[in-house]
Amino acid sequence: GHARIDHHRALRSGLPEVIYAAGKTPDQTAEIFARMAAAGSDVLATRVDEPTVAAVLAAVPQATHHPQARAMSLRQTTAEISGHIAVVCAGTSDLTVAEEAAITAELFGTQVTRLYDVGVAGIHRLLAVREQLSQAQAVIVCAGMEGALPSVVGGLVGVPVIAVPTSVGYGASFQGTTALLGMLNSCSPNVTVVNIDNGFGAAYTATLIARAANHSR
Amino acid sequence: GHARIDHHRALRSGLPEVIYAAGKTPDQTAEIFARMAAAGSDVLATRVDEPTVAAVLAAVPQATHHPQARAMSLRQTTAEISGHIAVVCAGTSDLTVAEEAAITAELFGTQVTRLYDVGVAGIHRLLAVREQLSQAQAVIVCAGMEGALPSVVGGLVGVPVIAVPTSVGYGASFQGTTALLGMLNSCSPNVTVVNIDNGFGAAYTATLIARAANHSR
Amino acid sequence: GHARIDHHRALRSGLPEVIYAAGKTPDQTAEIFARMAAAGSDVLATRVDEPTVAAVLAAVPQATHHPQARAMSLRQTTAEISGHIAVVCAGTSDLTVAEEAAITAELFGTQVTRLYDVGVAGIHRLLAVREQLSQAQAVIVCAGMEGALPSVVGGLVGVPVIAVPTSVGYGASFQGTTALLGMLNSCSPNVTVVNIDNGFGAAYTATLIARAANHSR
Amino acid sequence: GHARIDHHRALRSGLPEVIYAAGKTPDQTAEIFARMAAAGSDVLATRVDEPTVAAVLAAVPQATHHPQARAMSLRQTTAEISGHIAVVCAGTSDLTVAEEAAITAELFGTQVTRLYDVGVAGIHRLLAVREQLSQAQAVIVCAGMEGALPSVVGGLVGVPVIAVPTSVGYGASFQGTTALLGMLNSCSPNVTVVNIDNGFGAAYTATLIARAANHSR
Amino acid sequence: GHARIDHHRALRSGLPEVIYAAGKTPDQTAEIFARMAAAGSDVLATRVDEPTVAAVLAAVPQATHHPQARAMSLRQTTAEISGHIAVVCAGTSDLTVAEEAAITAELFGTQVTRLYDVGVAGIHRLLAVREQLSQAQAVIVCAGMEGALPSVVGGLVGVPVIAVPTSVGYGASFQGTTALLGMLNSCSPNVTVVNIDNGFGAAYTATLIARAANHSR
Amino acid sequence: GHARIDHHRALRSGLPEVIYAAGKTPDQTAEIFARMAAAGSDVLATRVDEPTVAAVLAAVPQATHHPQARAMSLRQTTAEISGHIAVVCAGTSDLTVAEEAAITAELFGTQVTRLYDVGVAGIHRLLAVREQLSQAQAVIVCAGMEGALPSVVGGLVGVPVIAVPTSVGYGASFQGTTALLGMLNSCSPNVTVVNIDNGFGAAYTATLIARAANHSR
Amino acid sequence: GHARIDHHRALRSGLPEVIYAAGKTPDQTAEIFARMAAAGSDVLATRVDEPTVAAVLAAVPQATHHPQARAMSLRQTTAEISGHIAVVCAGTSDLTVAEEAAITAELFGTQVTRLYDVGVAGIHRLLAVREQLSQAQAVIVCAGMEGALPSVVGGLVGVPVIAVPTSVGYGASFQGTTALLGMLNSCSPNVTVVNIDNGFGAAYTATLIARAANHSR
Amino acid sequence: GHARIDHHRALRSGLPEVIYAAGKTPDQTAEIFARMAAAGSDVLATRVDEPTVAAVLAAVPQATHHPQARAMSLRQTTAEISGHIAVVCAGTSDLTVAEEAAITAELFGTQVTRLYDVGVAGIHRLLAVREQLSQAQAVIVCAGMEGALPSVVGGLVGVPVIAVPTSVGYGASFQGTTALLGMLNSCSPNVTVVNIDNGFGAAYTATLIARAANHSR
Ligand SMILES: Nc1ncnc2c1ncn2[C@@H]1O[C@H](COP(=O)(O)O)[C@@H](O)[C@H]1O
Ligand SMILES: Nc1ncnc2c1ncn2[C@@H]1O[C@H](COP(=O)(O)O)[C@@H](O)[C@H]1O
Ligand SMILES: Nc1ncnc2c1ncn2[C@@H]1O[C@H](COP(=O)(O)O)[C@@H](O)[C@H]1O
Ligand SMILES: Nc1ncnc2c1ncn2[C@@H]1O[C@H](COP(=O)(O)O)[C@@H](O)[C@H]1O
Ligand SMILES: [Mg+2]
Ligand SMILES: [Mg+2]
Ligand SMILES: [Mg+2]
Ligand SMILES: [Mg+2]
Ligand SMILES: [Mg+2]
Ligand SMILES: [Mg+2]
Ligand SMILES: [Mg+2]
Ligand SMILES: [Mg+2]
Repeated sequence: GHARIDHHRALRSGLPEVIYAAGKTPDQTAEIFARMAAAGSDVLATRVDEPTVAAVLAAVPQATHHPQARAMSLRQTTAEISGHIAVVCAGTSDLTVAEEAAITAELFGTQVTRLYDVGVAGIHRLLAVREQLSQAQAVIVCAGMEGALPSVVGGLVGVPVIAVPTSVGYGASFQGTTALLGMLNSCSPNVTVVNIDNGFGAAYTATLIARAANHSR
Repeated sequence: GHARIDHHRALRSGLPEVIYAAGKTPDQTAEIFARMAAAGSDVLATRVDEPTVAAVLAAVPQATHHPQARAMSLRQTTAEISGHIAVVCAGTSDLTVAEEAAITAELFGTQVTRLYDVGVAGIHRLLAVREQLSQAQAVIVCAGMEGALPSVVGGLVGVPVIAVPTSVGYGASFQGTTALLGMLNSCSPNVTVVNIDNGFGAAYTATLIARAANHSR
Repeated sequence: GHARIDHHRALRSGLPEVIYAAGKTPDQTAEIFARMAAAGSDVLATRVDEPTVAAVLAAVPQATHHPQARAMSLRQTTAEISGHIAVVCAGTSDLTVAEEAAITAELFGTQVTRLYDVGVAGIHRLLAVREQLSQAQAVIVCAGMEGALPSVVGGLVGVPVIAVPTSVGYGASFQGTTALLGMLNSCSPNVTVVNIDNGFGAAYTATLIARAANHSR
Repeated sequence: GHARIDHHRALRSGLPEVIYAAGKTPDQTAEIFARMAAAGSDVLATRVDEPTVAAVLAAVPQATHHPQARAMSLRQTTAEISGHIAVVCAGTSDLTVAEEAAITAELFGTQVTRLYDVGVAGIHRLLAVREQLSQAQAVIVCAGMEGALPSVVGGLVGVPVIAVPTSVGYGASFQGTTALLGMLNSCSPNVTVVNIDNGFGAAYTATLIARAANHSR
Repeated sequence: GHARIDHHRALRSGLPEVIYAAGKTPDQTAEIFARMAAAGSDVLATRVDEPTVAAVLAAVPQATHHPQARAMSLRQTTAEISGHIAVVCAGTSDLTVAEEAAITAELFGTQVTRLYDVGVAGIHRLLAVREQLSQAQAVIVCAGMEGALPSVVGGLVGVPVIAVPTSVGYGASFQGTTALLGMLNSCSPNVTVVNIDNGFGAAYTATLIARAANHSR
Repeated sequence: GHARIDHHRALRSGLPEVIYAAGKTPDQTAEIFARMAAAGSDVLATRVDEPTVAAVLAAVPQATHHPQARAMSLRQTTAEISGHIAVVCAGTSDLTVAEEAAITAELFGTQVTRLYDVGVAGIHRLLAVREQLSQAQAVIVCAGMEGALPSVVGGLVGVPVIAVPTSVGYGASFQGTTALLGMLNSCSPNVTVVNIDNGFGAAYTATLIARAANHSR
Repeated sequence: GHARIDHHRALRSGLPEVIYAAGKTPDQTAEIFARMAAAGSDVLATRVDEPTVAAVLAAVPQATHHPQARAMSLRQTTAEISGHIAVVCAGTSDLTVAEEAAITAELFGTQVTRLYDVGVAGIHRLLAVREQLSQAQAVIVCAGMEGALPSVVGGLVGVPVIAVPTSVGYGASFQGTTALLGMLNSCSPNVTVVNIDNGFGAAYTATLIARAANHSR
Repeated sequence: GHARIDHHRALRSGLPEVIYAAGKTPDQTAEIFARMAAAGSDVLATRVDEPTVAAVLAAVPQATHHPQARAMSLRQTTAEISGHIAVVCAGTSDLTVAEEAAITAELFGTQVTRLYDVGVAGIHRLLAVREQLSQAQAVIVCAGMEGALPSVVGGLVGVPVIAVPTSVGYGASFQGTTALLGMLNSCSPNVTVVNIDNGFGAAYTATLIARAANHSR
């Protein structure tokens, strides 16, 4: 086929390749998944729809489906847990993105504390989990609509916050654009931002941070 | 001249006309200010620049200049104070807009509590003024950058919150557009929004609300 | 589950929580509706689609479906009517949003006068209902396309006008963005704005205003 | 020089060329103005700044300066008045654009009724000039901010309405873009639109319409 | 029902009301169509989909369906032809909009010359119909993609050109926005613009122009 | 200094480096210009303002200033002319960009035919130069406002057309964005596009095309 | 029918007309395809969906379907190969657009080297094909997401690079707009750009360039 | 004054407050700078213009001015160097932002390797510094125009990359928006993004990452 696999990245970062299923047919995803499974590595596919789930399970019956995260995984290595992050989200509708982040980080061997439904309109809910937040070596915050949550979280912790705008909302949310812009203008200086709904990318960077914090060089 | 004065509005709402100086020459503003002063009403001009201040003071020496608010006023009636609002802002750069709101409301006979520099990146600052917030019959919240403050304030009070996006910020703040969009997507249902930097409009509506709450019909 | 219910808001404002069904499965909405019904409170769900209506009716047969408003409600308390608002809309295509506002306000115990199909291209229709408009303690105006109606209404009344842009239109209406921008630039100073199609939010704030006007503090 | 003069247009439409001074140096404008004056035609230059006014007056002392319209003209023919239009505007800040339209139409030999400062927030002002409006064979409506006026005027008359959005406003007016979008979505079907601040183009088309209405073919 | 019919418009302009079916159910459109048919007037419905066609034909079997124009009509009056326009379009994909304009104008009693598939990339095609163009009292030009055609046509005729951007294209055509912007910036001063795909509005104004040109007042 | 000079490009393409003065101080530009002059190469600086012109002339008195193109050049090699292009523009205001393209191409050893002020609103002007157009091996077309010219030119020639949108215009031209979008949607398939006002880039590619056409490989 | 076939283009450029099926019914496309096939020319149809494939094959059984390119072709002439281009793409999801370009160029008689899946995040993949890149007389680069690839390729070759943004991506890719903007701002001066997903247009211009380079005039 | 200083942040993160001078008068900045200097802390002010530099130097003569970074600093503590980052930029025009990042990180006690003028159009320049890149615990990449550099750098290193879009460019760069969007769509998963020109924020997060990597917890 036309694909040129990027073995360099895994070598550099120690993190395995991940299959982005959105642009692929079920058969293509299943075939790549099976090839990586046969090679003995941990495997993760994101953005799987129902036909893709069926195709992958047919090819690799021992794969796990994470419906809320729209992901499938297969753990084959015994990498020890290394690093600890929190995944925070504002409302129940952000769960899909938050779970994509959490599942990805866990496959990468990172411990994940989930702190969900703590939106800023009821700020007491966030303050109630402050203790748990302060344990993390990096924090991922997923929020749609006005995207205000990362700024508040950023002010509460002393570690990097990775903000993930979600496409949740309607009207002037413009499919996550408003949340994205809000996060880029955060008044908390420890906030950096990834693309709308990109839970995967947030987990990738958070894992790099937490892992480095765990193993000083 | 071409102007058709709208006497109807004052009759309907009990609130006097206000001069918007931005689109006028210093002489035009000074002349209208003087005419209204001569008629015995309270007078307010917003968005005054330095030449306009000079022209108005030359024509109406007893006028007061509010530099932070970019406004000039003249109180001639003895309307009792009726209604109580809070004006909240996120950072020192929002002061211009916050003061335009506060000065306008005060000229309209409304009591104003100013709660400034309570941005969400240090949420303890907002929680510290919670008691004061809860006294107001309406709350105006001015914020630039990500515009997150109205959502948090909206969650803390049981009265209408009028959000004013400010043009403070740079880059992806797009001169207040990001704050505007964020506020329109607020997850607090008691938040309504006015145009970027429109402290005057926020004060107008907040005054109507507070006044009605004071005088039941 | 992950949900953290916000009991604080109801305590602060006296208004019950409302279920936003758009981001939920029929089962999730039905379960929350049933739980709140069992607790004896008034219940309202907005943005219900047909499968959700079926699921809620199966769980709570005494619930009422408001098809035009895309909402379901259950009244269990005997709260007296307190406050009076008008809901105005420009065309028949804005009815869905107008009814979301009207049904929400009524559930909150507010008296609603509906003034529909009074768009500005036939201004005599609006002038004909001027008397009725002047009775309201707050006015909600829903309009799509150019969103001109709130400015005209704002000039006719002396109370706050809450403008709701609707996603009605095509081409350069950009799904309600043009109406939204027009309303934010209203030359009537008593106009504030909520998100596109957000009849619920407009009703929430209008109810707070009308209720306060009714019960002076 | 590089210029290729378009003699065809004048032949086709009977309307003389007009000099758009914005992209030209004072000397360039003055030279073209003088050349056209020497040729015996009526001459009009729009968007003249102060140095251009000086340069033109030095070259053609008998030229007239219209400061409000930012235009200069020279009438040399004795074309009879043919056709009658109205130029309507919402506020004093729209006067520059309205006058560009009025001066242009008058140079083209069209009778102009000016109806200024009749914005929709005080609708009685517009209704008061209804009789005058109904005389026109075409109506030009200039408005900034929310651009609502053409829809209302369009509903009052039975002739074409040409809407000119103006760059008046601030914040979410986006230099006239909001007014432009509003006018394109007008619910009155007799409204067509020209570019922001393009009083010249509106007058050109209005003149063609009124002239044809006067001289049936 | 909630509808307030605007009898004023027909009185003012002599043009009948037209049913915009896009926002209505088939039953609603059919009922209004039938009511107007019973009243003896000419009837036109635009933007009809297949279920609406069926519903209208069931209610008014003598109605005519114009599939290319997505319209239905019923002629009952015997208004003589008065005025003559041309409808020009760039490509075969603009036919839907062009036909909406042509059918509307014809129902209003205007003679229509159709000049289709004369896009600017093969300019000889447009030059070949120049003679026909010059007969019209107003010209409607429909074009998608870059929207260049109205400028070229505007330079060829001495009457008003009404430009209709169409949503034809892909990628950076942004559903007609590029064509719309191009037309607003036309360097031909006799071009005015309506909303994307608004063939109806263009025909309405073109009819007013041509009719007035026919009957001098 | 921090600069890493890219000698590779000149080796690859045979075209010398060009100094982009817009982001540099006069001294920086003058110093680089002098260094390249001392090295014996042909030198070109684009986007020079007045202080930069003075600084360069002080350092390299034999340099030539091209005011209309906002450029300075020094020819030191005796490269024969190789390839022939046309530079076309719509109006006098596009001259700056057209001349940047022409001067750049000439310094690169390309013969340039200038065809200026041939905008589409007077199409006869373009048809009159058709013979000259057909001689070129590549055509550069600069146009602002609606950017329609490249489509028409593209339909007249059988060689690549490079379209340069210019920032000429006002209002809805959005500083050249409208022209850019129009050109990207050209219905002529031989049109490719560069950034707004980028005459330099257009000349660079046109030179590569014409040179290759001259020297077959 | 309404179609006016543009025989001029083929005469000018020597390249046959190509059928753009997206805006046509299967029957329309099949009929045009059959007519051109009967006339003995090479035929190409792009953007064919499944019903169109069936209709064309029914009418012209000897036609070839290229599923990855969404195209159908019929070669009937024996034009020798003339010119050599490379088609480069960043990821597997860009294959559709890359193949549209490759198939089009091949039908036009151009030799095509395909270099796929060489995105910039693994730059070694691109460097590994550097030798092959340097053989081409023009290079087409298709990329979605951030659209960075053309700049890097442009720096490696001395011939024109035609950049094709693809609609691949999600969130802030805005259906290819981000890639488009990035390519327009390329810091490599030999890059020109076509519309999003416009593989056809890129192949058309690349063919003109390569053919001219092959046959010096 | 109105300022509520946020002592919490320094406690949480160990990083001192930084003065953002852009929204402040010279006197305000000088006064805060002096107050912090008197308190014995390290002090940094960003976005200082010339009057601010003068005012600060008058108040705190021992302060250092960094003209390229538009910053002023005062080091008073003897914090050991802890952590090591690289700051990379594409062109000489990005230096201002790159230096803001570098100076900020250095004040925070981080070792900085500067790798400037390594834009992607001459990729050999970046590959030449690959060894130095691989030493860093976090990498900041500043780039304007198409913003392609972070993706390429992200593919070369195994640590987090913080991308800073710069407002360098013209036309379709839209003051850094194009670079911002490109970076958000990076195909390298270790890239996160901050606001346009926000060198400070990038340095803040990079410092947190590098410091944690140095001191395992
Ligand atoms: N949900 C996701 N969002 C963004 N990128 C992803 C996602 N899942 C996987 N990826 C990236 O996509 C790459 C694979 O893309 P591809 O070569 O098209 O299969 C992986 O190496 C990841 O870097
Ligand atoms: N139609 C609506 N539009 C916007 N917000 C709504 C709507 N209906 C309900 N809500 C809000 O959504 C909240 C519940 O959201 P959730 O926690 O996601 O169920 C309620 O408290 C309301 O504030
Ligand atoms: N204010 C204006 N706005 C738009 N177009 C104008 C204006 N004034 C003059 N024009 C047009 O500009 C043309 C002259 O442009 P130019 O050839 O650049 O001098 C005239 O023929 C008019 O069509
Ligand atoms: N007017 C221009 N527009 C765009 N790019 C230019 C222009 N003039 C020169 N350049 C490019 O800018 C590069 C130099 O940029 P720099 O390294 O910042 O001096 C040159 O190699 C050219 O590729
Ligand atoms: Mg909730
Ligand atoms: Mg502060
Ligand atoms: Mg109606
Ligand atoms: Mg007024
Ligand atoms: Mg065709
Ligand atoms: Mg001209
Ligand atoms: Mg790949
Ligand atoms: Mg350089």
